[in-house]
Amino acid sequence: MSSSSASTGTLSYEQAGVNYDLIDPLKVAAQRAAAATAGHLTGHGFSEVAASRGESAYVVDVGPFYLASIVECLGSKALVADEMKALTGRSYYAGIAQDTIAMAVNDLITVGATPLVVQAYWAAGGSDWFGDAQRAQALVEGWKRACDTCGVAWGGGETPALAGIVEPGRIDLAASCTGIISPKSRLSVGDALGAGDAIVLLASSGIHANGLSLARKLVERLPQGYLTEVAPGLTYGDALLAPTALYSPVTEALAKAGVTMHYCANITGHGWRKLLRHPKALTYRIDALPPVPPVLSFIQRHAQQDDREAYSTLNMGAGFALFVGAADAQRTVEIARGLGIDALVAGRVEDGAKQLLIEPLGIRFGDDDLQLR
Amino acid sequence: MSSSSASTGTLSYEQAGVNYDLIDPLKVAAQRAAAATAGHLTGHGFSEVAASRGESAYVVDVGPFYLASIVECLGSKALVADEMKALTGRSYYAGIAQDTIAMAVNDLITVGATPLVVQAYWAAGGSDWFGDAQRAQALVEGWKRACDTCGVAWGGGETPALAGIVEPGRIDLAASCTGIISPKSRLSVGDALGAGDAIVLLASSGIHANGLSLARKLVERLPQGYLTEVAPGLTYGDALLAPTALYSPVTEALAKAGVTMHYCANITGHGWRKLLRHPKALTYRIDALPPVPPVLSFIQRHAQQDDREAYSTLNMGAGFALFVGAADAQRTVEIARGLGIDALVAGRVEDGAKQLLIEPLGIRFGDDDLQLR
Repeated sequence: MSSSSASTGTLSYEQAGVNYDLIDPLKVAAQRAAAATAGHLTGHGFSEVAASRGESAYVVDVGPFYLASIVECLGSKALVADEMKALTGRSYYAGIAQDTIAMAVNDLITVGATPLVVQAYWAAGGSDWFGDAQRAQALVEGWKRACDTCGVAWGGGETPALAGIVEPGRIDLAASCTGIISPKSRLSVGDALGAGDAIVLLASSGIHANGLSLARKLVERLPQGYLTEVAPGLTYGDALLAPTALYSPVTEALAKAGVTMHYCANITGHGWRKLLRHPKALTYRIDALPPVPPVLSFIQRHAQQDDREAYSTLNMGAGFALFVGAADAQRTVEIARGLGIDALVAGRVEDGAKQLLIEPLGIRFGDDDLQLR
Repeated sequence: MSSSSASTGTLSYEQAGVNYDLIDPLKVAAQRAAAATAGHLTGHGFSEVAASRGESAYVVDVGPFYLASIVECLGSKALVADEMKALTGRSYYAGIAQDTIAMAVNDLITVGATPLVVQAYWAAGGSDWFGDAQRAQALVEGWKRACDTCGVAWGGGETPALAGIVEPGRIDLAASCTGIISPKSRLSVGDALGAGDAIVLLASSGIHANGLSLARKLVERLPQGYLTEVAPGLTYGDALLAPTALYSPVTEALAKAGVTMHYCANITGHGWRKLLRHPKALTYRIDALPPVPPVLSFIQRHAQQDDREAYSTLNMGAGFALFVGAADAQRTVEIARGLGIDALVAGRVEDGAKQLLIEPLGIRFGDDDLQLR
């Protein structure tokens, strides 16, 4: 068995086709140019919350409250839905709709925002995409249901047919979300994050919508492809397509219960390294792990990833991290569970070098393992 | 000469490849589902401005002011930039960036909003798109410059590489925009629109970013393609790529000057039929026309469109319509001109059947010529 073969050996995220070395210079240039526009808000009597640059959503102080906004892309998960439709005849686009909204909403809430309005961006490869009534209806119904779960108004959106830009038969899905942070004390950009805080992890429902390039690449290694079972009666394709958990009901319930979030991280790309998101020099010590969804242990096994690689890429059962005062930790878990989202107190924040210590697995991630800013 | 030939005869928008019959059922289903989510705002102590459903931006009453949000797609104009790059070696993506922001900002301001934050959505067909440093830099610089012109903060955005969804070498560009309507009296959803109002048209800079499917289809008829001259020294490609005018400086200046907009319409798809956008039964009588940009008269001539077809598809020199009290009309024109955007008092609103009468051309559009809601 050759470790350099395409069909065996460790499969990393980079091998799955996304080259960040090409994207990153643009991102840096864009971030610099974007930061230079903040002064325009002064002309309107407002100002940006500078600490939100580098966070998951952008925050502006508009006086009586903060305004938060974001646009987020689904990524390539719709390609799995298309493959599974061909194999099973079923439409998975209700779940795909939820995934798309989750990408936006779960990011927006990290800054303490209540999501208010979602806009749909559905760019198809041609008008004919919308001619499949079953699929189109599933997309609409799933989108509506996710809005209902999150208590947001669906404001509208765009449904362009972009032949020549989007591939024939495909759709590029994204969502924008606008919310407010009110009262202003709900702002969560890490000012209150510090030693002694508890780390509460909210359960993921599966792979969510990150790591799909890797998951799709892996299919080539599976003799039955997407129909390979990851657990009795559960195919790889169905497991991958479990819709992303929506966490805004939890953050809203916490606010109503008077639990102050000191910080949060939506665990998406970069897996558990996202726990190192805040720039503060702090040590995050994990002593309890959530159960790993079958589809993720399946991916880890077949991609021959060690724990370090898997936890640095996939959510491994933790979809969202909440940093709260130790006294609020147990209540946070109970509130999440009361809403049907499993949770656990996974560890604590300590003074010390910036690092994440996943003690049950003997893994350490340092500051240089995550470069987001 | 056969009128059914692909290379001659009238070229309509439908022939250019967008089939609204396939998209419209989905749009209707989505609009219904979206409208049914409005009640969620009550749970947060807010409410939607119901009249904004069907308008260009969605508006929520958040107490001290209104919140407006939108997501908009560039469409296929980037394909022209790619063709012209191959022909001239130049990058047109600074202008393309402005076009994308214009699509969002020019829509957002129709409801009376001050745009505050723009988010970038740049979905490429692969990481390598961003490897062309000249093009990527032009996109960043143009985006920044458009934000500067509009006085908006660039909050951030998404730069996904979507191989398998977006075509190789292409990019799907969109922008989301969030703003506020403050004071609340600036809300412009047509309540004040009525007989006696003046119709002020702001000049377009060219085709803007609507009608590009038609414009691209037309290239097949031109012996020198995009390098055909539309005016001495100006190629068809360069003329098409003139960046869309940004109108938010005008609407902001009008507000500062105390001019109340009774209503506005961003003239995009459906050309001048957009003047019929508001549901009220009113007659819009046009007695003066703005000059037609050379590229649009060129398209009309080569597509063999009569005036009715041209004015129902293209902006024909009018990029944005402002409906103001007759006493404010001349001042509105002067304010726009002072900002470098030509304008004219083109006509007036009258009691009567819902119709648009373009008297200098003998054209009438009735209510059934525009179905947007």
